[in-house]
Amino acid sequence: MSEASRVVRKQIGNFLEDFVPGQLFRHKGGKTVTEGLFTTFTEFSMTTNPLAKNARYARAYGFDALVCPPGLVMLVAFSQTVEDISENARANLEYVDMRFGAPVYVGDTIEVETRVLEVTGSKSNPKLGVVHVQSTARKNLGTPNEAVVLAWQRKVQVWKRDETAELHAGKVEPDRIECSLWLPAYQPSRDYKSMAQLSNADTYFEDFEPGTRIEHSRGRTMTAEHIHLTAILDNTSQVHCNQFMIDLDPKQYVGGKLIIFGGIPFVLCLGLSCPNVGDNALGDFVYKTGRHTAPLFAGDTVFAATEILGKRDHPQRPDVGILETRLLGHKFVKAKEGEVDANAPEGWKKVQIFELDREVVVKRRSHYA
Amino acid sequence: MSEASRVVRKQIGNFLEDFVPGQLFRHKGGKTVTEGLFTTFTEFSMTTNPLAKNARYARAYGFDALVCPPGLVMLVAFSQTVEDISENARANLEYVDMRFGAPVYVGDTIEVETRVLEVTGSKSNPKLGVVHVQSTARKNLGTPNEAVVLAWQRKVQVWKRDETAELHAGKVEPDRIECSLWLPAYQPSRDYKSMAQLSNADTYFEDFEPGTRIEHSRGRTMTAEHIHLTAILDNTSQVHCNQFMIDLDPKQYVGGKLIIFGGIPFVLCLGLSCPNVGDNALGDFVYKTGRHTAPLFAGDTVFAATEILGKRDHPQRPDVGILETRLLGHKFVKAKEGEVDANAPEGWKKVQIFELDREVVVKRRSHYA
Amino acid sequence: MSEASRVVRKQIGNFLEDFVPGQLFRHKGGKTVTEGLFTTFTEFSMTTNPLAKNARYARAYGFDALVCPPGLVMLVAFSQTVEDISENARANLEYVDMRFGAPVYVGDTIEVETRVLEVTGSKSNPKLGVVHVQSTARKNLGTPNEAVVLAWQRKVQVWKRDETAELHAGKVEPDRIECSLWLPAYQPSRDYKSMAQLSNADTYFEDFEPGTRIEHSRGRTMTAEHIHLTAILDNTSQVHCNQFMIDLDPKQYVGGKLIIFGGIPFVLCLGLSCPNVGDNALGDFVYKTGRHTAPLFAGDTVFAATEILGKRDHPQRPDVGILETRLLGHKFVKAKEGEVDANAPEGWKKVQIFELDREVVVKRRSHYA
Repeated sequence: MSEASRVVRKQIGNFLEDFVPGQLFRHKGGKTVTEGLFTTFTEFSMTTNPLAKNARYARAYGFDALVCPPGLVMLVAFSQTVEDISENARANLEYVDMRFGAPVYVGDTIEVETRVLEVTGSKSNPKLGVVHVQSTARKNLGTPNEAVVLAWQRKVQVWKRDETAELHAGKVEPDRIECSLWLPAYQPSRDYKSMAQLSNADTYFEDFEPGTRIEHSRGRTMTAEHIHLTAILDNTSQVHCNQFMIDLDPKQYVGGKLIIFGGIPFVLCLGLSCPNVGDNALGDFVYKTGRHTAPLFAGDTVFAATEILGKRDHPQRPDVGILETRLLGHKFVKAKEGEVDANAPEGWKKVQIFELDREVVVKRRSHYA
Repeated sequence: MSEASRVVRKQIGNFLEDFVPGQLFRHKGGKTVTEGLFTTFTEFSMTTNPLAKNARYARAYGFDALVCPPGLVMLVAFSQTVEDISENARANLEYVDMRFGAPVYVGDTIEVETRVLEVTGSKSNPKLGVVHVQSTARKNLGTPNEAVVLAWQRKVQVWKRDETAELHAGKVEPDRIECSLWLPAYQPSRDYKSMAQLSNADTYFEDFEPGTRIEHSRGRTMTAEHIHLTAILDNTSQVHCNQFMIDLDPKQYVGGKLIIFGGIPFVLCLGLSCPNVGDNALGDFVYKTGRHTAPLFAGDTVFAATEILGKRDHPQRPDVGILETRLLGHKFVKAKEGEVDANAPEGWKKVQIFELDREVVVKRRSHYA
Repeated sequence: MSEASRVVRKQIGNFLEDFVPGQLFRHKGGKTVTEGLFTTFTEFSMTTNPLAKNARYARAYGFDALVCPPGLVMLVAFSQTVEDISENARANLEYVDMRFGAPVYVGDTIEVETRVLEVTGSKSNPKLGVVHVQSTARKNLGTPNEAVVLAWQRKVQVWKRDETAELHAGKVEPDRIECSLWLPAYQPSRDYKSMAQLSNADTYFEDFEPGTRIEHSRGRTMTAEHIHLTAILDNTSQVHCNQFMIDLDPKQYVGGKLIIFGGIPFVLCLGLSCPNVGDNALGDFVYKTGRHTAPLFAGDTVFAATEILGKRDHPQRPDVGILETRLLGHKFVKAKEGEVDANAPEGWKKVQIFELDREVVVKRRSHYA
């Protein structure tokens, strides 16, 4: 159109100096969980817990329907915050105190808000700083089954638009958000034992021993499918999907290629650990802290391990216990000439990509099998 | 089977000399929109309009459920016509007067028919010619909510089977098809303002200024996923999915490789433009004309821009206005030695791949925010 | 975790010496068919039968809703048995007497059990042997619409854990499982003819002639998408998805690369044959025998052909007949220097990858069109 006299390019997302402690973002979009979304992520990540696969089982346990696995709840909720909070981020530094609440079913609509707690400039790099935020995901606002499904904090390293800009000072205490894992009532009249063959026989609460490290046996190679998986989550960050941008200046980007969205290895590690740790879980309780420790690219194969840190009773529920774990993700890269890694096959080096301190609510064999 | 004495290979689709002006095709198959189809295309294309993402929002506006984005309605309807009309086409020349009608929801079944309007031989190439057709897509035939969802014409360049065959003469006027965009009633009692944070704040009707060109900020790299996306649409054209056929005679095919189905960049350009143009749309009104101007291949990154051509009131509805736009898609290819393109980064050339004259029905801030 | 003193790696699946004739596996997981799963496989495989695409048509015929295509029923049921039966297999030798029963709809939950019939050591290789099993897939256990949906036997070549271990002797007769294809009643009051345009006009029972070989015209190139497709089916076998494992010792694996799960070409061949053979089928009756005859890799293009072996009346239903066919899948690979294949274009060699003796229940034109 020759007469187009004015060209507009809109800024997307916020920069470090835009964030104000106490400020509340009510994020755009919202997301209704469809069967397409549910299936893609439950299966991609190799989740094995029957609550997410077998509706007969889920209903018999007292859930309404197939239950979204915790990794999917996290991905949907987290992704809603990306444009406002981390579109202009350099790195997501830490997940903090991520607590699960009500179960999420197909058909539920998730909406998320985020409060800014603190903004801190970097001492070493005037172009960078850290935003500390608190986010809350609720489902079905304004309906009788409105409920909090996830509450968490995170710390993100964000670029400044203008490196001379002043940052907003101050620090706000996190809101007190009621969010604790909903569990269906234990009812002896339900014939749990008749369904016990549907989950692994050796992953009840009694089976775990603190001090154990479980090396999960499966690996899963990621492909360019990550572009599609990331888009399904409404995460539009260009470093995951715009190859042309990377090609123009590869040195500017980690590894010089499209980087896989951190939520993908997050949910994949949960899935790979599922047959050994999550198969008899009724839900994930809290992720106390977590972080990505190395990037992941198409072609990498992801593996996972779980360390059993401890166990404790559930305060109200004798039928379950709380398992304290650390979930670890890793991949292998070619070793350099002369480099030896005792934890990797010859010629390879093991690289940790993810860690998550994770508490899981696990059924007791005494009550369920 | 040694005794198989007779080998059959069925012809698929029609050739130029098969089309008869006035002839009506009632296309095979039909297609029920599932949540799998809905999610794949809504999210692949990065649609941001909450009507397609947030069921609470869609229902509050007076729709029955999540609303299929216009690009998906177009893809489903169009694809139903491919086997009969364009299986043996060389190129789809032009979309004409594509008008939207009733909204499409998950569970709706779309069936399509096409009338042949005119068949014209090429003056320069005796093997080719153009078929001009009119197609109509209806949903839920024979039920109380039967409705036209899309009506359009298109011109397709089709091969002749036998270059000496005579073409069917004559010209038929298009049927008069009632098809205009259904809009939910505006009801002040609905608390639209309480949901205004879910869409972009700067894309109401008042925000657009004719003469502006909006460069949409996001790009999206296409991968071999296009094969799967095309199959989901029932488009079985071999140039999109049969690599062996291409390998046998690469020179015969554009670019010597699998070409991406034009419907993919069509819907992707709509999606890339959505945060700046479609976020507060209640629907797409008409695509007056549109065409693909260059092929797209796996590995290409798609970008889009929208020119605001004009604005006008909606004849019946003071709460919305009609935005007249031109949607443009482009990609970048490596420049040849010495070739300079002022619209592209150094060493690259900008190639327009798609254009669509598009009228959108957009909410007014005065009524909704 | 430095204090993790004990490292655990769990065995997955069974080895040859673990199987005991008469033993019954009630497989883990179970699977509820979602719209995501349904759409992915129906469309990936290019199924054209309107029963799986058009809910209006399916309901008008007397089904409850869209009907899962037979290939998908088979894939879901079969995959449930992989971990217990064939996780440590070298090859799946043969499908035997695979009979279809009740139709499967979105929302149905499939659970599967398998009885071990016989275990036989290999005479030539002390590390290997064959397990012969019988599997039964049921839907909606414990509900009024509980039903058998698929019953079959298969023979699998499985590794021994310890090549000196004794095998369990004995042979058990297969259980007698009631499983025959459910068909909706033929009711002349239903206006079948008014929907006849939705399926191909030349694939009624009357149209098939024994001794004919139909070369299906379409081919479909497989990509790395196979990793995702296999995971959606709960098939976690590492040879399909763990590139790192292959890279460590490529010679150990067929072709030195990830091999595509056999279920993928199985369902794809069914789909490619659908427009010529399955478009007017009411269901698949039995797969008497079937096997994979060569591996498939990402990048290969799959083609299919169907030999019409015979036809017979349906014992109870004059409106349909039973078509006896052999479905064949093939691909082309580069010919070696000097190698000539009359069935392939010059420079290529045709490789059969799959064969299936398949009986299909097909509508008669006399009753339906």
